[in-house]
Amino acid sequence: MPEITIEKLNEKNFDQFLSLLEKFAEFEHLVPPDADARVRLRADGLSDRPAFKAYLGYLEGTPVAYVTFYLTYSTFLALPTLYLEDIFVIEEYRNAGIGRKLFEFCKDEAAKRNCGRIDWMVLTWNKTAIGFYERCGGRRLDWYAYRIERDGFLK
Amino acid sequence: MPEITIEKLNEKNFDQFLSLLEKFAEFEHLVPPDADARVRLRADGLSDRPAFKAYLGYLEGTPVAYVTFYLTYSTFLALPTLYLEDIFVIEEYRNAGIGRKLFEFCKDEAAKRNCGRIDWMVLTWNKTAIGFYERCGGRRLDWYAYRIERDGFLK
Repeated sequence: MPEITIEKLNEKNFDQFLSLLEKFAEFEHLVPPDADARVRLRADGLSDRPAFKAYLGYLEGTPVAYVTFYLTYSTFLALPTLYLEDIFVIEEYRNAGIGRKLFEFCKDEAAKRNCGRIDWMVLTWNKTAIGFYERCGGRRLDWYAYRIERDGFLK
Repeated sequence: MPEITIEKLNEKNFDQFLSLLEKFAEFEHLVPPDADARVRLRADGLSDRPAFKAYLGYLEGTPVAYVTFYLTYSTFLALPTLYLEDIFVIEEYRNAGIGRKLFEFCKDEAAKRNCGRIDWMVLTWNKTAIGFYERCGGRRLDWYAYRIERDGFLK
């Protein structure tokens, strides 16, 4: 079995994290972080009270995957929710159990942090991700996701 | 014009908040917070670093609405997101501009906190809420919402 290891985001692996994030943006047809955004990501991810948690997945020492999450809150459960922001494995390294290992890691984190739920969203066209999430135990909710972009509230 | 005021959650209005939360749970066909959950809500909502922000809406001094939100994070924008958890107006007080005022308040908060987005979810059957959100400038995303409940990750 190839060795899969998980490492928390830190100063040393930060550039590896950025490079994975760029690959993910490309895969999701999204704009990758520009120079200013990369500076903010470092400050927000590595501060004493980080705005998000990030963990990198390594296959035999090569960074091939990452996950980011943060805690939200359910007012009905009155418990924190672990909210998965990103989970990504570089395409050529898929089906080797790396995504599953990162997902199980998040389940352990949710248990440790006394969460009531794990929530996340998935693009409706991403059939591969949907299959993966359902194998991981995810259940689709009867909710619509809504958004207002920055230019809708800046005056 | 009837006077609408907005007040931050505090020790004095906390019981009014709980009572509104119960009415919301009833409306959404959800289980309202039990005694333990109410204790956690107080601790989590009124601590120095609250797990959620809550604001109550008053019509001529009567508590008739509330909103809860927290900050999440977009790794692509590298900016915080204002995530709307609940927004609720007691049924008999609707169509008086109270929900709209709370929503505009959230837009101002998002601007103040340098957010990149406002995100939220809505139950697919809640046509009234969907109409309201679209009038407020919300755009439906092509995302599915997924969840794992607590018994899916506790060992």
